[in-house]
Amino acid sequence: MVDPINIEDALQHIETLLAANDLDSAAEFLRSLHPADSAEILSTLEPDIQSALVARLQPTELAEVLGQMDEDDAAEVVQHMDVSALADVLDEMEPDVVADLLGELEPEAAHQLLQEMDEGEVVAPLMAYPEDSAGGIMNVAPPCLRRHMTVAEAFQFIKEHYQDANEIFYLYVLDRYGRLIGVVNLRALILAEPEQTIEEIMDRDVISVRVDADQEEVAQLLARYDLLALPVVDAEDKLVGIITVDDVVDVLEEEATEDIYRLAQVSEHAEIFSPITQAIRNRLPWLYINLGTAILASSVVSLFEETIAQVALLATFMPIVAGQGGNAGNQSMTIVVRSLALGEIDVDSAWKALRHELMLGLIHGVLLGVTIGLIAWFWKGNPWLGVIIGLAMLANLIIAAIVGVLVPTTLKRLKVDPALASSVFVTTATDVMGFAIFLGLATYFLNWLR
Amino acid sequence: MVDPINIEDALQHIETLLAANDLDSAAEFLRSLHPADSAEILSTLEPDIQSALVARLQPTELAEVLGQMDEDDAAEVVQHMDVSALADVLDEMEPDVVADLLGELEPEAAHQLLQEMDEGEVVAPLMAYPEDSAGGIMNVAPPCLRRHMTVAEAFQFIKEHYQDANEIFYLYVLDRYGRLIGVVNLRALILAEPEQTIEEIMDRDVISVRVDADQEEVAQLLARYDLLALPVVDAEDKLVGIITVDDVVDVLEEEATEDIYRLAQVSEHAEIFSPITQAIRNRLPWLYINLGTAILASSVVSLFEETIAQVALLATFMPIVAGQGGNAGNQSMTIVVRSLALGEIDVDSAWKALRHELMLGLIHGVLLGVTIGLIAWFWKGNPWLGVIIGLAMLANLIIAAIVGVLVPTTLKRLKVDPALASSVFVTTATDVMGFAIFLGLATYFLNWLR
Repeated sequence: MVDPINIEDALQHIETLLAANDLDSAAEFLRSLHPADSAEILSTLEPDIQSALVARLQPTELAEVLGQMDEDDAAEVVQHMDVSALADVLDEMEPDVVADLLGELEPEAAHQLLQEMDEGEVVAPLMAYPEDSAGGIMNVAPPCLRRHMTVAEAFQFIKEHYQDANEIFYLYVLDRYGRLIGVVNLRALILAEPEQTIEEIMDRDVISVRVDADQEEVAQLLARYDLLALPVVDAEDKLVGIITVDDVVDVLEEEATEDIYRLAQVSEHAEIFSPITQAIRNRLPWLYINLGTAILASSVVSLFEETIAQVALLATFMPIVAGQGGNAGNQSMTIVVRSLALGEIDVDSAWKALRHELMLGLIHGVLLGVTIGLIAWFWKGNPWLGVIIGLAMLANLIIAAIVGVLVPTTLKRLKVDPALASSVFVTTATDVMGFAIFLGLATYFLNWLR
Repeated sequence: MVDPINIEDALQHIETLLAANDLDSAAEFLRSLHPADSAEILSTLEPDIQSALVARLQPTELAEVLGQMDEDDAAEVVQHMDVSALADVLDEMEPDVVADLLGELEPEAAHQLLQEMDEGEVVAPLMAYPEDSAGGIMNVAPPCLRRHMTVAEAFQFIKEHYQDANEIFYLYVLDRYGRLIGVVNLRALILAEPEQTIEEIMDRDVISVRVDADQEEVAQLLARYDLLALPVVDAEDKLVGIITVDDVVDVLEEEATEDIYRLAQVSEHAEIFSPITQAIRNRLPWLYINLGTAILASSVVSLFEETIAQVALLATFMPIVAGQGGNAGNQSMTIVVRSLALGEIDVDSAWKALRHELMLGLIHGVLLGVTIGLIAWFWKGNPWLGVIIGLAMLANLIIAAIVGVLVPTTLKRLKVDPALASSVFVTTATDVMGFAIFLGLATYFLNWLR
């Protein structure tokens, strides 16, 4: 039984071998691991060492390892390989993975490889679809059954056509025009009598997706209906490909990471140990955008410097109102963004969500407003300060509810990823309005504060 | 072919039927949908209508619908059902789902149902494991092959023992002590000759998990090695259960949602249309915690009220330094939290991550410090103000890097979910230190600012 290996230990082992310049043993060690593990280790090595190790692997071995890498890492590993050697490797890989990999290369190099490959004409059509669409993640359609086949014939068909398949998820049934009319799972086939026809045992309710569907929608469908694979059809219901659950597991992790990073205002390409220049590109632009919005909020404060000079304790309470608005707005925004991503709401439910969040904002605003009002009163001994900060808190939490719903739903309506830019707008709104309302009220009632 | 239905339309349709008090047609409509869709619709209806509809469904129909619900929703739907009727329904469901559902009921009621059920002794052991462990999400072990069986015998075995299974993922091979020694996939079985033995065609490299492994680890293993199912073993390597990829897809979505919500300081139970009282419970405690930390930060500002009274424009710049620290700290923290969740780093890599983030904090701090310094100088005409705010910015970004790494890794080391509480600590640190350093420097160099 194989226990999943400890990557840190494996890395250390290979580094020891490399330090001793024992490339053959290092290649041998890689070969002994699960391809997913070799892929991770190979990705972390220096380019010249990668090349040396890659040269020592058989095409089928390298194909398995490349199949487990992110396409950008894989593209880096193969970039110095000879065209015909690489074409042999690519012929051993799954066409959808090859299409993604080729998409990372220079168009010229990709074209040359497609020419050189035996399976070039299978891969080329897959490259036409956007990377994050059903077409972009699907694999070529598997060999399909016809409804008049008997179970015995189907077994024979599988023996002939699935010799090279890694796994059979479902067997699809097509009519004579190539349109999808049914599905049979292997269990049903095994349990059936040899002389039964496919038509008798097939399930006519096939859930499928259109080739232009978004990959997130595909993932939701598979998750919702607990499917192992989803057939992909074109506008005429003809089967053009298949998406399997293992691809979707990767999509789900990718999409979740993307949302988490975008909500935190980090590029979705961020990785914990990105090279520093890359890390700066992933994060600094967002910090500068935030600096811009912070200066905008500051310029609001700047309008009230006279008031603050007279009642300096306003500076003490100023960040509380803005900060609580930011936190509440962030809560509403995050729930809306995630619910949009999971398909639990669509933009048409925006009004319902707005009513819900406004009600919450009102209740939270009253409770937090009274709390901070009492604290301010007893801390600084001025009841009017309490009233002003309490009212400002209430107003800012209502604003937070409004922007927390309207910003992400509006971005979604404009076909922008709501996770991408919502934080900036929500924080700017709650900062600017938080400062303006609190300091504005304070200026208006200045005589009662002094 | 079935297109995935539009839930909004379906809801409207059933509401029309219910408004006309036509419960029979409503039940009929539910029956016509995919159980996943019926489950979603049923969850949104009022309790008395749920009961009326549930009473109109056959045990097998209800079992399918309940199997697609969250366990808390399912528990609500069944709470008023008669014990023996419910036991019949539960007997039709998958044991792992029943175990989760029973876990939501009163212990007394759960015990009574286990007694009443035919499958009670299959379900009971599953209830012993923590809900988020491998044991908590696994299903009972499927019937297994022995290595001396022939392929023909294996087919016969499947016909006898898998009559009721939904799906066959892999066939596992056990030795005489019940220990896992191999795995055969159905494709290999179909392609093999009838007289070959299982031993000849089985794969001895079986990846498995221990019954006490965390569900997140399980999800990572399945995703990493592209598996459809993972066998679960006890301390003696005996097969005790199986976790299938469809359960893991749900786990991945759950865990991602949990992380996203916790990072935004919302309870992981939040849903967009939670009842208001529930929504308040999910969010208000976090707002009060933040109010506490905001008051802490304010009390730092309060120490410098004298300085602010003399140089009111400090109030203008004060939020910028704290805010940028908060944003940068949030970036580091989010990347560390997500990398921990995906298993890309562990707590032992904390020092490496700290070095990386410190370097970034230094570079970002210098760039943002110079930028804001120049802006402050030209805006307010005082170069010393620029120097002070620039230095404060640099210092706070370095602090942000430190807390952004150390807070989540320390929480992880303490076995607390890093997503849960990191934001509070990071924001508190960057606010308190941002105000203290900026206003402290300003007080020290007060003569040059006036």
